[in-house]
Amino acid sequence: MNDITYKPVGIIHSPFKEPEGAPIQPSASQARGTIEIFPEFVPGLKDLDGFSHIILLYHFHRSRKPELVVRPFMDTESRGIFAIRAPSRPNSIGFSVVRLLRIEGNILHVEGIDILDGTPLLDIKPYVPKFDSAEAERIGWLEDKVGKVESARDDGRFS
Amino acid sequence: MNDITYKPVGIIHSPFKEPEGAPIQPSASQARGTIEIFPEFVPGLKDLDGFSHIILLYHFHRSRKPELVVRPFMDTESRGIFAIRAPSRPNSIGFSVVRLLRIEGNILHVEGIDILDGTPLLDIKPYVPKFDSAEAERIGWLEDKVGKVESARDDGRFS
Repeated sequence: MNDITYKPVGIIHSPFKEPEGAPIQPSASQARGTIEIFPEFVPGLKDLDGFSHIILLYHFHRSRKPELVVRPFMDTESRGIFAIRAPSRPNSIGFSVVRLLRIEGNILHVEGIDILDGTPLLDIKPYVPKFDSAEAERIGWLEDKVGKVESARDDGRFS
Repeated sequence: MNDITYKPVGIIHSPFKEPEGAPIQPSASQARGTIEIFPEFVPGLKDLDGFSHIILLYHFHRSRKPELVVRPFMDTESRGIFAIRAPSRPNSIGFSVVRLLRIEGNILHVEGIDILDGTPLLDIKPYVPKFDSAEAERIGWLEDKVGKVESARDDGRFS
């Protein structure tokens, strides 16, 4: 299949300048950040301010070469890359649900960010529970480890 | 910022051969489909079978040229592209949460699919409610329209 090329529509600003020490999921962060939308895309923000939460899709620009089987932050065993959330993926696309606080011109103020400063933004979608949340009855290897997410921090292993 | 290039890791097979008539969200579909992972990426599927739901990121290969303000399927007014889920986006990345039924070799059997047949797959992530679901108290223009999703169908306007 053909390669697919995207152009960033903005840039994410956060308190996390380096991978080491950053939270590893939005649910583990109360950190605030801003999303700068490039001027030519600002018309696309119309009506977004009605949503309390938004989906951010972005490029893990600091991730190292992908590996298919790696050890995640919260585990001692190696797992398949599609079964974990690490950035060093075949296509290094990141996904986070964050709270939208307000929009001022081309700047979105958000809360609950786990994204490195300077990350290129690919897309924003409105978060809609009916579309995007599922009653997941099984979460695999994370079952007895998901509680560690608040204390786990990036140790730089994927960058 | 630089362009970002991705290579598909697989291809999505579904009953929906054309945009017209397809469901517009996974929550409006009980349809089953399969995801064919290209052989070189199969080691990355290790441990994924423990998860009841997975996140699919894919390229809307049939979407037309992006527009920043468009009329969504479930509304009579035009909305900003970042406030709707239409495929004709600046970067045409699709996002769906689907149920994983089983994995056989390089084939994932899934349920609740709203994706066109032949769609290039970019990434799979395990769906984890603690990371990915939010108590969204506001869903903007969708507030009184989200109930229409079960009956709304693609009419081909974005392809």
